[in-house]
Amino acid sequence: MNFKIRTATKEDCKDISRMIMELAVFEKMPDQVKISHEELKRDGFCQNPFFECLVAEVPEEHKSKEGFTVVGYALYFYTYSTWKGPSVYLEDLYVMPECRGNGIGKGLLSKVAEVGKKKQCVRLQLSVLNWNTPARDFYAAKGAQDLTESEGWHFIRFDGQNLDNLANEAPED
Amino acid sequence: MNFKIRTATKEDCKDISRMIMELAVFEKMPDQVKISHEELKRDGFCQNPFFECLVAEVPEEHKSKEGFTVVGYALYFYTYSTWKGPSVYLEDLYVMPECRGNGIGKGLLSKVAEVGKKKQCVRLQLSVLNWNTPARDFYAAKGAQDLTESEGWHFIRFDGQNLDNLANEAPED
Repeated sequence: MNFKIRTATKEDCKDISRMIMELAVFEKMPDQVKISHEELKRDGFCQNPFFECLVAEVPEEHKSKEGFTVVGYALYFYTYSTWKGPSVYLEDLYVMPECRGNGIGKGLLSKVAEVGKKKQCVRLQLSVLNWNTPARDFYAAKGAQDLTESEGWHFIRFDGQNLDNLANEAPED
Repeated sequence: MNFKIRTATKEDCKDISRMIMELAVFEKMPDQVKISHEELKRDGFCQNPFFECLVAEVPEEHKSKEGFTVVGYALYFYTYSTWKGPSVYLEDLYVMPECRGNGIGKGLLSKVAEVGKKKQCVRLQLSVLNWNTPARDFYAAKGAQDLTESEGWHFIRFDGQNLDNLANEAPED
């Protein structure tokens, strides 16, 4: 299957939004998605965007059953390690199930690595659910380390009322 | 103990660099630190900085044994959730051991939460080592969730040769 990977534009936000939901359904947390395509447009296509995004596109003759030609995406941003410097973080990598097995996921991942290297990033990082064996195997086969297993790193989150409480207790300037 | 929390300036980079090393020693990975104070200056105090930083300062009369008045720091940057939108990520939170127990760590954490809320962030996230019980208890007491335990998220990293290999295999534009 022919495909092309390109930088996403504002006009792709509806497709990206659709695939964000498909990925959340797969991850068993579809009710967690609160971001619309309008918000993606605002947050990713402004002066200092919060993220960058690549999309994978197939020719008309290979469009999906529902008629989509944008069949995958990789959404990422830049982070910083105080030990190593600039890094790239891959928030989402997704390829529609009917288009898998054609190297599209690998193409998106490699392209993010290439973009990161051009920005002097020394790490490409991401998170994966422990039961998502296909994804874990995919990354491991390409040489990734699981730092939760090898070094014991855990993810911690404040949100909702806990985050409000923290912010309200901030010392005066 | 009196302390003040303020936005870091270029002139704080030597102090921040010193404390980055102290934190890495505590985390048992001091040989991993490759970033100098010059690089911190370049990466954090430019047009589009990779990170922001707060420092905690004590008055002269409370300076540390070695004569330091900058005794803690919180280094953070902005990330993006495709489910929830802008988030803030706390890369490092550190207070010198002799200054702990005075609310400095809590003050730094709260201030990062406040800064994040002002930027419409709905999450404050960070990582912690599983054997770092004081830190895990500190965050849990303030209401944080451990997502590695509750949802099974693992950290994945590409670096070095694996990252180069990926980048080199990126499809042509």
